[in-house]
Amino acid sequence: DGALGATRAAVIGGATGTSNVEAAARYGLRATGTHAHAWVEAFPTELDAFRAYARLYPDDTTLLLDTFDTLRSGLPNALTVARELRAAGHELRGVRLDSGDLAYMSAQVRAELDGAGFPDVQIVASNDLSEFVIESVIKGGGRVDVYGVGTQLATGGGEGGGALGGVFKLVALDGQDRMKLTGDPAKASVPGDKRVWRARTGQGELVMDVITGLHDPVPQRGERVSDPTNPLGSRRVPAGLTWTDPRVVVMDGGVRRQAPEPLTDLQARARADLAALPEGTRRLLNPHRYHVSLGAPLQARRDALIASLRDRHGL
Amino acid sequence: DGALGATRAAVIGGATGTSNVEAAARYGLRATGTHAHAWVEAFPTELDAFRAYARLYPDDTTLLLDTFDTLRSGLPNALTVARELRAAGHELRGVRLDSGDLAYMSAQVRAELDGAGFPDVQIVASNDLSEFVIESVIKGGGRVDVYGVGTQLATGGGEGGGALGGVFKLVALDGQDRMKLTGDPAKASVPGDKRVWRARTGQGELVMDVITGLHDPVPQRGERVSDPTNPLGSRRVPAGLTWTDPRVVVMDGGVRRQAPEPLTDLQARARADLAALPEGTRRLLNPHRYHVSLGAPLQARRDALIASLRDRHGL
Repeated sequence: DGALGATRAAVIGGATGTSNVEAAARYGLRATGTHAHAWVEAFPTELDAFRAYARLYPDDTTLLLDTFDTLRSGLPNALTVARELRAAGHELRGVRLDSGDLAYMSAQVRAELDGAGFPDVQIVASNDLSEFVIESVIKGGGRVDVYGVGTQLATGGGEGGGALGGVFKLVALDGQDRMKLTGDPAKASVPGDKRVWRARTGQGELVMDVITGLHDPVPQRGERVSDPTNPLGSRRVPAGLTWTDPRVVVMDGGVRRQAPEPLTDLQARARADLAALPEGTRRLLNPHRYHVSLGAPLQARRDALIASLRDRHGL
Repeated sequence: DGALGATRAAVIGGATGTSNVEAAARYGLRATGTHAHAWVEAFPTELDAFRAYARLYPDDTTLLLDTFDTLRSGLPNALTVARELRAAGHELRGVRLDSGDLAYMSAQVRAELDGAGFPDVQIVASNDLSEFVIESVIKGGGRVDVYGVGTQLATGGGEGGGALGGVFKLVALDGQDRMKLTGDPAKASVPGDKRVWRARTGQGELVMDVITGLHDPVPQRGERVSDPTNPLGSRRVPAGLTWTDPRVVVMDGGVRRQAPEPLTDLQARARADLAALPEGTRRLLNPHRYHVSLGAPLQARRDALIASLRDRHGL
């Protein structure tokens, strides 16, 4: 309901299309958009994914370039598909940039598209855009034709602006691990089915959460667990910890598995959980960051998949 | 619905009461709060209002001190009522601060309450509180017993945080103008029934909006209109303006008076309205502020009411 109201307001304010197909149908708007990163992850290579999409929508294909590397993989593959489409009597409609320096990237992509004989391929930009980012892209010499604005338009930006930045990435398909790379290590996904283990001291104070593969063993004393957002941020699991599975199944297969709890129980649990956090993590200014790490076996599988994907895409 | 969800979440997070009586009834919470500024405005004097409230709730009275002046009017009147309640076998429960320097004010109020023999009267603080403001009040030596947190808890703060800061103030009662003063001229209300006139140049560019009394004439060339938030910000109405009433009645007496308009019409009107704004008002950084002023007759009535209220409260 919020998304529908936001879409309606955005159109009144001047937006010319929406990727929300329900809103498009309900308000008679133009539905528009591109494929997801998951589409690319679902194929053996990015070029396979681009070709499959272009076969389905030969006259309405906009290709998302940054699943692995915008300039070194996404753009060359898009140019290949653009030539193949033209040879078959069609034209690539656009390419989409969703990360990195949009001013620099869009100028580079525009130059390469023009140089290859595709001056009419549109450049679409997205990635948490606001009026301020758009102005900066324009002033920085960006060559963007279409701006995709969502979060900052619908929920307000800034600290505490209300947006929950959830995104969908494919992590496994038919039992095989899948992932998105990107240039920013913090935004590369973690492949495979996973679970969380939570460590406490003997006094009950929380120490760390460790994400493991669904069937990996509980983290071991001395195991090197790593911070996926910081390649240098690994640490060894200390001794004397008690591990629990913090997951509580309340809904399974569409069926509620627990009765609702009284609000007073929820309040008591929240208070106990907050009290168990390590000292410093609740400070308002520069708080300590609670450790959430990847277990060693999961990290090893992730590293192997990164190497394989880089290899397959010449990166 | 948003308010109910926010209240439920706040209670899980540790809040001990709510001023949302619907949420209190639905979730079995403690309903708590104080009277509004409007309660005080509805009586000839603040002391009359405090006494009337204490008669209704002799064992559960928390008095809001800042309708006219916290330390010079609100607090002395609250002490009078506290003594009267005690003489009748009751005790004043609390006082509430809703503006100004809460650390300084609460320390002053605590000292005066203690000195007058009321160490058990609680001090409640409100006014757009966040965890950061509360920490600053505590570090600044504030003596607050209860923090009333709302906007910043439910909608997120910061620029574009999503909160629409609407408040209710009484502006007229039985045909008589009413207003709230406070120490901050920007937060004093504008009394009486009002309407808005919108001025355009001959080329259709918007120049200013002028708020007048409902039955005042259209603003006149040369009339001195004033900015209610800035006592020095008055200006004379220039010549050559066309005035329109921007109000469109779409609902009246619970009945819809216009058919819904197509989204494309709304979009076209928004575009035309934005295009008519004066140059500079749409700039992202330090934009010009569009002029919204009070008409001279309304400003004169407001000044007279301020003088009368100050007089009645010894300010």
